[in-house]
Amino acid sequence: MKDGLSVGIAGLGTVGAGVLRLLRDNADLIAARAGCRITVVAVAARDRARDRGVSLDGLRWHDDAVALAADAAVDVVVELIGGSDGTAHELVMAALEAGKPVVTANKALIAVRGDEITAREGASVRFEAAVAGGIPVIKALREGLAANRIGGIAGIFNGTCNYILSRMQAERLDFATVLADAQAQGYAEADPSFDIDGIDTAHKLAILAAIAFGRPVAFGSVHVEGIRGISALDIGFAAELGYRIKLLGIARATEAGVETRVHPAMVPLASPLARVDGVHNAVVIDADPVGQVVLQGRGAGAGPTASAVVADLIDLARGRAAPMLGVPHEARVAAPSVPMWAHRGAYFLRLMVVDEPGVIADVTAVLRDYGISLESMLQHGRSPGDAVAVVMVTHETGEAAMTAALARLATLPAVQEPPALIRIEIA
Amino acid sequence: MKDGLSVGIAGLGTVGAGVLRLLRDNADLIAARAGCRITVVAVAARDRARDRGVSLDGLRWHDDAVALAADAAVDVVVELIGGSDGTAHELVMAALEAGKPVVTANKALIAVRGDEITAREGASVRFEAAVAGGIPVIKALREGLAANRIGGIAGIFNGTCNYILSRMQAERLDFATVLADAQAQGYAEADPSFDIDGIDTAHKLAILAAIAFGRPVAFGSVHVEGIRGISALDIGFAAELGYRIKLLGIARATEAGVETRVHPAMVPLASPLARVDGVHNAVVIDADPVGQVVLQGRGAGAGPTASAVVADLIDLARGRAAPMLGVPHEARVAAPSVPMWAHRGAYFLRLMVVDEPGVIADVTAVLRDYGISLESMLQHGRSPGDAVAVVMVTHETGEAAMTAALARLATLPAVQEPPALIRIEIA
Repeated sequence: MKDGLSVGIAGLGTVGAGVLRLLRDNADLIAARAGCRITVVAVAARDRARDRGVSLDGLRWHDDAVALAADAAVDVVVELIGGSDGTAHELVMAALEAGKPVVTANKALIAVRGDEITAREGASVRFEAAVAGGIPVIKALREGLAANRIGGIAGIFNGTCNYILSRMQAERLDFATVLADAQAQGYAEADPSFDIDGIDTAHKLAILAAIAFGRPVAFGSVHVEGIRGISALDIGFAAELGYRIKLLGIARATEAGVETRVHPAMVPLASPLARVDGVHNAVVIDADPVGQVVLQGRGAGAGPTASAVVADLIDLARGRAAPMLGVPHEARVAAPSVPMWAHRGAYFLRLMVVDEPGVIADVTAVLRDYGISLESMLQHGRSPGDAVAVVMVTHETGEAAMTAALARLATLPAVQEPPALIRIEIA
Repeated sequence: MKDGLSVGIAGLGTVGAGVLRLLRDNADLIAARAGCRITVVAVAARDRARDRGVSLDGLRWHDDAVALAADAAVDVVVELIGGSDGTAHELVMAALEAGKPVVTANKALIAVRGDEITAREGASVRFEAAVAGGIPVIKALREGLAANRIGGIAGIFNGTCNYILSRMQAERLDFATVLADAQAQGYAEADPSFDIDGIDTAHKLAILAAIAFGRPVAFGSVHVEGIRGISALDIGFAAELGYRIKLLGIARATEAGVETRVHPAMVPLASPLARVDGVHNAVVIDADPVGQVVLQGRGAGAGPTASAVVADLIDLARGRAAPMLGVPHEARVAAPSVPMWAHRGAYFLRLMVVDEPGVIADVTAVLRDYGISLESMLQHGRSPGDAVAVVMVTHETGEAAMTAALARLATLPAVQEPPALIRIEIA
C-alpha cells in the first residue's frame, strides 16, 4: 500500500461535513478499495465556531479557502464552496496552478468554466458529485458507455423540482402551496430560483451533453424553462391522459446538431422517468449499440454527494483518469447547438375559453393555419358563457409553428388566459 | 496519442462479431475516448468458413484459441468462448502467464475460478460484460460506489427468465408454452437449463457479491432455484395481491454473514424491479451513505455485450485499473455465507385443498405450530368436494420453520398437490 492521500476540503456545509464523516466511518473499506488511506488534513470555511456534528480536531484550518491550494500538507483539494465565480473559481485555478488535482461538486463552475479548465495542460478536475449526486452517471457515460455513440440523454436532475411536482401530483396542490411547504421543510431554498427556474438542471445537462457528444460545454445554448408555470389543473389533465409532468433536462443528437433543453415535460407512465418521485434523480441514456440504460438514485444531500466526492478521491488514489469531458480538449468536435425553435415534438396545449358556439372552430382554424394537427382534444363539462378548459394533444409539430399559433390563439376573444403549453417526451 | 492496442478475439459468435463490428463502426470515437486506436489483429474460432456478417480480411486466424496468448501481435486477449473449464480457462491462464491482460464476458469462469485468477500476481482480467451485459454495474459497484458500505444487491440478471415470466404474466400462459415459444424465437437455448434453473443468475450474483462485500467468490454457497415451478395460477395470484414474480439474484449483508440466493420472488409493484420486463436486466444496490441506486438496461445480445467488452478495452488503453474484485486479493474478508435455512422473510403460500369444512382450521393449526403468522389469506370461489386454491401471505418468518411447515402441510389428507411457496422481497 502506498502512502496516503491527504485531502483539503474547502466548504464545510452539509456536504463537506458528510465527506469528513464518510472518510472516517468507512476508512478501512475505503483504504482497501483505494489502495491507500485517504485522510482529510486541512479544511477551510468561514465560521470556525459552528457545530457541524463532526470533529475538526487535528485539522489545519484556513480562513481563506484559496490558501488550501498552497498548503504543502494537502495533496488534493476538494472544492465544496459552489458558484461559477469568486472563491470557488479562484481556489480551483490556484490548485491547478500548484499542480494539485481537484475534486468538486460544483456544477455551475464546470458548466460555465469547464472549457477554460479543460484547456489547461494537465488539469485534473473530477466532478462526479456535480451531476445527479450519488448516481455515478459521469463515470457511466465517460467510461462505462465509452464505446457507444450517444443518441440522447434525458433526465430528472433537480430533486427540489421533482419533490414539488411529485407532491403537486399526489396531493393535487398548487405550485405556490407546495413550494412554501418545501421551503419550510428545507427541501427548497429561501431563494429557490436556481432550482425551480431550471438553471441547476441546465448546468448539469450542459456537463452531460459535453461528455456525451465530445464537444465543448455550451451552457449558454441550453434552452431553459422552469416549473413556476405548472398548474394543478395541468397535472390533473396529464394524469388523465396517462402522463406525469417532470422537469427534464434533455440533450439529443439530431441531424442539425445537438438539442439541449430544460423544460417541464409530459412523460408517458410507461417511461422509466414517470415513476421517479420525490427528491430522486434519474437519467435515461440512449446509446448505440447498448440501447437504453437507466440510472436512478438520490441526487442530492450529504450522503449521496459525499459518496460521489469520495469515489473521485478513490479514483485519484488508484491513478484512474479520463479526459475531464471524456475526450481530450483538442479532440472535441464543435457539434452545433440546435436552437429551440427548430425542435419538433408533440405538444399538450390547454386553453381556457368561453364556452360558446364556434369557439372550437376558431381554435382549430388557427392550428390548421400553422399546419398543426391534433391527436386528441378533450373538454370537461359544459358551462355556457363561462370559461372552461379545452385540452389538446398535437401530433409531431415544429416549435416555431407552435409558438406562432400560441400567440395567435392568445388574441382570440374567447380565449381567457394565456394558453398553457407543455411538451410531450416519449423517452 | 500512444501506439494502438492490438486485440485478439477468441470466439466469434454473435458477441465476438459484435465486438469486431463495434470497434470498426465507432473507431474514431473510441480512439478519442481511449487515447489510442483499438484494433483487432487476430481471431480464433472453430469454423473459418462461416459467414458472420463481418469481414475477417487481414486478421490473423488461429484454429487453436490458446495460441492467441502466444501471438506476439496480440496485446490483449478477449475471451468470448465461455465456460468455466476447457479452452476458455486454458486461454485465460496462458494469456496471464504471457503477461497479457484479458477481457472476458465469461461469468462462469469468474464465478467458479475468480479466486484462482485474482490470486495470480499482477493478473489483469476485466469482465464488465459478464454481468448484466450493457449495464456498467461492475464499474458502478467497484468504482462509482467504492466509498460505500454495500448493504445488499438485488437484481434481474437473466433475460431469458425475465422474458418467460413477463410473457406468462402478460398473456397468462403456462411455463411450458412460453418456454417452447421462446426456444422457437431464439430467446431460449435448446437446452435452457443454465438459464431457467438459475445457474446463470447465480454466476452473476456470486461475482457481484464478491465485489460488494470484498470477499472471495463463493459460487458454491449460492442458494439456487429456477423458474420451472412457476405456474400461471401463481402469476395470477401475484398480480391480484399487487406483486410481480421475477427471478432474482439477491446478496445481502446480515448480522450472521452474507446471504446469497437465487429464486423466484414476488416483488411489489412499487419496486423498481417489478416493471422491468422482457429481456431487460436491472439491479438495485442498497449502499451507505448513497442510499438506493438502480441500474437498468439490456443484459445480453451482441450490442450490449460488445459495449461492455470495448469499455473494458478502453479502460485498459487509458491505464485505468482496479483490483479485479474491488479490493486486492490479500485484503479480502472471509465474510461467512449464511445458509438458506437461516433466511427470514415473508412468504406466499398456495395450497390446493379439498373444499370441505375444517380444512382451513387444519392448515392454520399447522402454521401456528411452527410459529408462522399470516398477514392475509384468500380463497377464490367455492367448489364443495373439489380442489380449490387457498393463498396465504405470511408475516416475517424463518425459512427453516416454513420448510418444516410445508412438509407437514403436504401430508394433510385435504391437500391435493405439493404446496407452492414463493418468497416475497420488498427491494
